[in-house]
Amino acid sequence: MQAEIIAVGSELLTSQRLDTNSLYLTDQLNALGVEVVTKCVVGDDRDRLADSIRRAFRSAQIVIITGGLGPTEDDVTRDAVAQALSRKQRFHEEIAGQLEERFQKMGRKMAEVNKRQAFIIEGAEILPNDRGTAPGQWIDEAGASLLLLPGPPHEMKAMFTLQCLPRLESRVPKLAIRTLVMRVAGMPESDLDQLIAPVYKKYENPVTTILAAAGDIQVHLRARCGTEAEALALLAEVAAPIGQLLGDRIYSRNGEPMEAVVGELLRQHRAPVSVAESCTGGLLAERLTSVPGSSDYFEAGFVTYTRRLKAELLGVTTNPLVSKETAEAMAVGARQRTGSTYALSTTGVAGPGQGGETAPVGTVYVAIADESGSRVSHRQFLGDRDRIRQFTTQMALDMLRRRILGL
Amino acid sequence: MQAEIIAVGSELLTSQRLDTNSLYLTDQLNALGVEVVTKCVVGDDRDRLADSIRRAFRSAQIVIITGGLGPTEDDVTRDAVAQALSRKQRFHEEIAGQLEERFQKMGRKMAEVNKRQAFIIEGAEILPNDRGTAPGQWIDEAGASLLLLPGPPHEMKAMFTLQCLPRLESRVPKLAIRTLVMRVAGMPESDLDQLIAPVYKKYENPVTTILAAAGDIQVHLRARCGTEAEALALLAEVAAPIGQLLGDRIYSRNGEPMEAVVGELLRQHRAPVSVAESCTGGLLAERLTSVPGSSDYFEAGFVTYTRRLKAELLGVTTNPLVSKETAEAMAVGARQRTGSTYALSTTGVAGPGQGGETAPVGTVYVAIADESGSRVSHRQFLGDRDRIRQFTTQMALDMLRRRILGL
Repeated sequence: MQAEIIAVGSELLTSQRLDTNSLYLTDQLNALGVEVVTKCVVGDDRDRLADSIRRAFRSAQIVIITGGLGPTEDDVTRDAVAQALSRKQRFHEEIAGQLEERFQKMGRKMAEVNKRQAFIIEGAEILPNDRGTAPGQWIDEAGASLLLLPGPPHEMKAMFTLQCLPRLESRVPKLAIRTLVMRVAGMPESDLDQLIAPVYKKYENPVTTILAAAGDIQVHLRARCGTEAEALALLAEVAAPIGQLLGDRIYSRNGEPMEAVVGELLRQHRAPVSVAESCTGGLLAERLTSVPGSSDYFEAGFVTYTRRLKAELLGVTTNPLVSKETAEAMAVGARQRTGSTYALSTTGVAGPGQGGETAPVGTVYVAIADESGSRVSHRQFLGDRDRIRQFTTQMALDMLRRRILGL
Repeated sequence: MQAEIIAVGSELLTSQRLDTNSLYLTDQLNALGVEVVTKCVVGDDRDRLADSIRRAFRSAQIVIITGGLGPTEDDVTRDAVAQALSRKQRFHEEIAGQLEERFQKMGRKMAEVNKRQAFIIEGAEILPNDRGTAPGQWIDEAGASLLLLPGPPHEMKAMFTLQCLPRLESRVPKLAIRTLVMRVAGMPESDLDQLIAPVYKKYENPVTTILAAAGDIQVHLRARCGTEAEALALLAEVAAPIGQLLGDRIYSRNGEPMEAVVGELLRQHRAPVSVAESCTGGLLAERLTSVPGSSDYFEAGFVTYTRRLKAELLGVTTNPLVSKETAEAMAVGARQRTGSTYALSTTGVAGPGQGGETAPVGTVYVAIADESGSRVSHRQFLGDRDRIRQFTTQMALDMLRRRILGL
């Protein structure tokens, strides 16, 4: 079975915005055994969109349209679909009522223009949206299915996963596609590839893909087999030698991000953590607390940007501020102030350089303190402010992971 | 003038790869005054690609195809274009000779399959490729231009910039395109639209686009005029009444994000800030410090996730933890501990609910403290953990902006 994805929105035709919904949908469709054969971005232009929809219907059995379901004049998806399929739209009192209720709950009056969202194409099934105002619609015609989904990713994902996936599963011929994701910290992409290529190149199935971000590499193995058992056995066969080559640099074998892996270790060991940040400016605390339930093990964070407050809040009197000694003193100070089992600290120069720095941009010190004392690591990273901050937090979390596991 | 971009390659239909060529081309075309109206990714399928090319020709005066010009069987662009335009291809001895020469220079023998790259569509002009093996092709038909460019970005960019841009410049009517971006905090998208639609609907030029994220709305006005002065005057004409309607809810008139706007205000007023966070877990500090140079005005952040550390680090003894009183006590405590001019605080339930919460998911209190005392705001947000945290930080930063400006 083949699918086409159409993202609607003039803003997605600028160089500042990318349609990322299609990436998520592609993964989901592929996992079902459905191939994505075309994807398009179309601006807020009804005729052009209607034309694209007609063409998509000719070439794919599943057509997914994201975006353009909002309340404003430039939201043209409903009208374009009605035009392409020569169907009428009907105003749906119940949806209008639900919209009004939603606004009331938030203590606001609904603007009249929101009623546009209560129009449903004749013959369409309504896909309720519990995360936003625009309901989705599902239309079957001539053996093909047309799905209208909202543009905001969190709304689209919830609607697709909970409401569309089960229906698609019952229609798509069974093919087991299973993916195994290993994640690796602290290794350059090219080194990793050189190490494991001799293994994965022997296999056309599973397909291996390597994705690199700042300090974080993902190795995706994707197997397509007749049954789930076959797919899983094949994945295990290829993952075993890769696992041996990468060893404890693999921090996750199920795709979980570092902050979730470290969080689970802290929970298991009943060992709370606190952090003291300079160059990462709160990002380390933010990553740790982005995990639901992190209040079980995260106790406190300090972001100390001045010399005075490093001294007053953490008792740091070392010099210079970007140094081994300061990183260790920050970690030790944070642990003393909070009583946490572990404390992490970061200090460095995230840039861009503005003169007056005592170290080059990208210089970073990360320290960890626990009952046995403290240790520190030093790195020189390349990249912009955001990347250096990402690298640094990844390095800090990996230090904590290794300390807990005794590596 | 309008353009469509088609990227060819099945690998661009996976979730691991993105077509980035179109971003570069969009910028280049926009700068010329050419609008990109659709962009597509099509797999290595001749019929499907030919169909897309036909449709593009109907709707755009410039059609750019990138990729699929290589030597292998799955490089189908030449064949698809010939099919779509009903033109023949001719083998070009001279190009074949140049290819062979290129391989010789690299000390390699040319594989027979490379000769496929010497086929040129009848009537096409050849665009030599000095960075790779696949020549580009330029075809004019029925008042439209079709450009076949290689897929590798460095080859595509060189060919487009050096060979295509000068030709396009001589054909495209001179146009100045200028954009004005206003950003608004604390207003639902539909309310904003209802308020300003009567203004922007009077104009087809500039084009108005409204983009909404958690607590942050962007109003883009994009003017196309004969000269830059005309474009700027037109933008000013439309921005003035919109500005009056939205008033001080507009926090930025040049597209800058809230953290940069607030940072600049703090810098101007020589008024340092500190923060105390609970539900936002470091995100508020992270946003403030993500701005280069923020060490000039950001002093310190506390992330206090436990009752004990709220008391020890900030002197907070109020109850319950998610309340007006706690938010105010956190802000006052952070200001006292740091001596900053301003202190912001957040406390709330970011969810997902796990039972045991004293307030519903999405309940948020944000407080600000300064020399005159403290004030607190309360909101009930909808959405997932990440969205609630985004909403909350936006609300906190906007409170600070309003306080500094005396609004």
